Amino acid sequence: MQQYLQHIEASVQAIQFPENPKTLYEPMSYILRLGGKRMRPVLTLMACDAFGADFKTATNAALAVELFHNFSLIHDDIMDKAPLRRGEQTVHMKWNENVAILSGDAMLIEAYKLLSTYNAEKSHALIKTFNITSTEVCEGQQLDMDFERSTAVSIPEYLDMIRLKTAVLLGCSLQMGSILANASAENQTDIYNFGVNLGIAFQLQDDILDLYADQAKFGKQVGGDILSNKKTYLILKAFEDASADQRKHLDALLLQKENPEKIEQAKVLFAALDIKEKATVKMEEFYTIAMQSLAHLQIAESQKKSFRELAAFLMGREN
Amino acid sequence: MQQYLQHIEASVQAIQFPENPKTLYEPMSYILRLGGKRMRPVLTLMACDAFGADFKTATNAALAVELFHNFSLIHDDIMDKAPLRRGEQTVHMKWNENVAILSGDAMLIEAYKLLSTYNAEKSHALIKTFNITSTEVCEGQQLDMDFERSTAVSIPEYLDMIRLKTAVLLGCSLQMGSILANASAENQTDIYNFGVNLGIAFQLQDDILDLYADQAKFGKQVGGDILSNKKTYLILKAFEDASADQRKHLDALLLQKENPEKIEQAKVLFAALDIKEKATVKMEEFYTIAMQSLAHLQIAESQKKSFRELAAFLMGREN
Repeated sequence: MQQYLQHIEASVQAIQFPENPKTLYEPMSYILRLGGKRMRPVLTLMACDAFGADFKTATNAALAVELFHNFSLIHDDIMDKAPLRRGEQTVHMKWNENVAILSGDAMLIEAYKLLSTYNAEKSHALIKTFNITSTEVCEGQQLDMDFERSTAVSIPEYLDMIRLKTAVLLGCSLQMGSILANASAENQTDIYNFGVNLGIAFQLQDDILDLYADQAKFGKQVGGDILSNKKTYLILKAFEDASADQRKHLDALLLQKENPEKIEQAKVLFAALDIKEKATVKMEEFYTIAMQSLAHLQIAESQKKSFRELAAFLMGREN
Repeated sequence: MQQYLQHIEASVQAIQFPENPKTLYEPMSYILRLGGKRMRPVLTLMACDAFGADFKTATNAALAVELFHNFSLIHDDIMDKAPLRRGEQTVHMKWNENVAILSGDAMLIEAYKLLSTYNAEKSHALIKTFNITSTEVCEGQQLDMDFERSTAVSIPEYLDMIRLKTAVLLGCSLQMGSILANASAENQTDIYNFGVNLGIAFQLQDDILDLYADQAKFGKQVGGDILSNKKTYLILKAFEDASADQRKHLDALLLQKENPEKIEQAKVLFAALDIKEKATVKMEEFYTIAMQSLAHLQIAESQKKSFRELAAFLMGREN
């Protein structure tokens, strides 16, 4: 893990965009240098390694994924009117919305440039995979925005949204690494499915932790999703399973402004409905599918072990 | 010309985006169906034909260029706060800014998808060319926005901005058609340069016509650029050549609100400085370079003739 991370961090720092126009390129360097976990590019390098090629072969594909992720952050932050990203001003706040739109566009194109640095056959395979995923990420973001305004979002719709918005990019990151190591079509499918299902499990875990994490260890406000009425698996499942009476309580909860008591009230309602347990079961379901895809992979057991360790690390659990 | 246009129009109408999410895909169909001259995709088909391949081979590359152009219109319209496009509501007015940002993003990705439908070698060549141009178009748009706020824009800076913002896409459209017909590297360069220089001449002509067109034949308000203080070749050249006294008049002109007399005053000042003639000389300079690139092409004289006719048609002149 550490060698991949160091390599990606050094490669990101080494990216040199043209100097002018400053208002186009400075925001791109700015957001890339805000940091982040670099989870996606690490997956690309790791997959390339696991299928037997030098992981550095996958550097540009890994950077492409990281650039795409940052493009989506720049544009999503405009749409969400977010003032901060990783504790610093978002691009549209530090500059303005127009700059953020255009720098994001140019960043998406830079991702394609990086994918075009391979030979024709590899570039073609990478770009075809990337095209599908990047469209899906846009669809996921649109669904997420649509859901904010919608009163009735079903659980399958929610799961599909998080699959598109966040999980497929993990699958794509892994698949691109495997493509560069000449993995078979079957192995590519398995590693992709491992990433997607792990991504959904990860997002469900995120929903659970937001309400049930230990505040001392949690980076943000516990219960933040409840305070802001964010549609998560927890609240959607609560609505699905609630009795008529409990539904009235849930409706009343959503009408409340942001106040700390809201969090406790939600916990009481959720406890009556076993929401934490149900969400955990659902999360385990996707984690198990991810592990099955991993088990099915035709690679050395030692390589599978490193993916299992990665999955455990991402999910914050002992392996 | 007519066969290319009909083919492109039919192909655009036949594009079927997925049905959902509606808020992502409907705006894409909407703007594509607002029409437009389809100049860029016609160039792609024409170049493919000129270099000896079936022009229909270039259909997807031509559509990619048209989608890219429409992506840039959606995002530029947000940045310019434009309410109308081709007489209809712009995407961000008909829906909202978030929808316009995301539909634009998805449309850019669709362009890459279309370029990926060719075999690996052709896709790779097309995408590498397209990557360079699409970055340049972003740079041009950023420079255009920067210039709006800048007091001192030089003529070379202006010419570079219009080259990037509009001309290179004409060159790229032609080059992509030539790539699909296996044109030599030298022919590719020549056809690209023909397009770029024709594009700059076309934009300069646009600047001239905006003030000097016959109102009866002109689609929009004659003098619109003067009314809105838009930086064009005319006004920049006037500032460059003005005496201290004339410069004071120009400064005073820019301070005026939108009133019809402003147009007449600009014409008087420009006449004293021979601005129309100087702009025409500059336009002819680029038109001549375009014709030289055309003359240098290693294709049949009959094919060159059709490019000459196209150029004359675009510039609205007798050949």
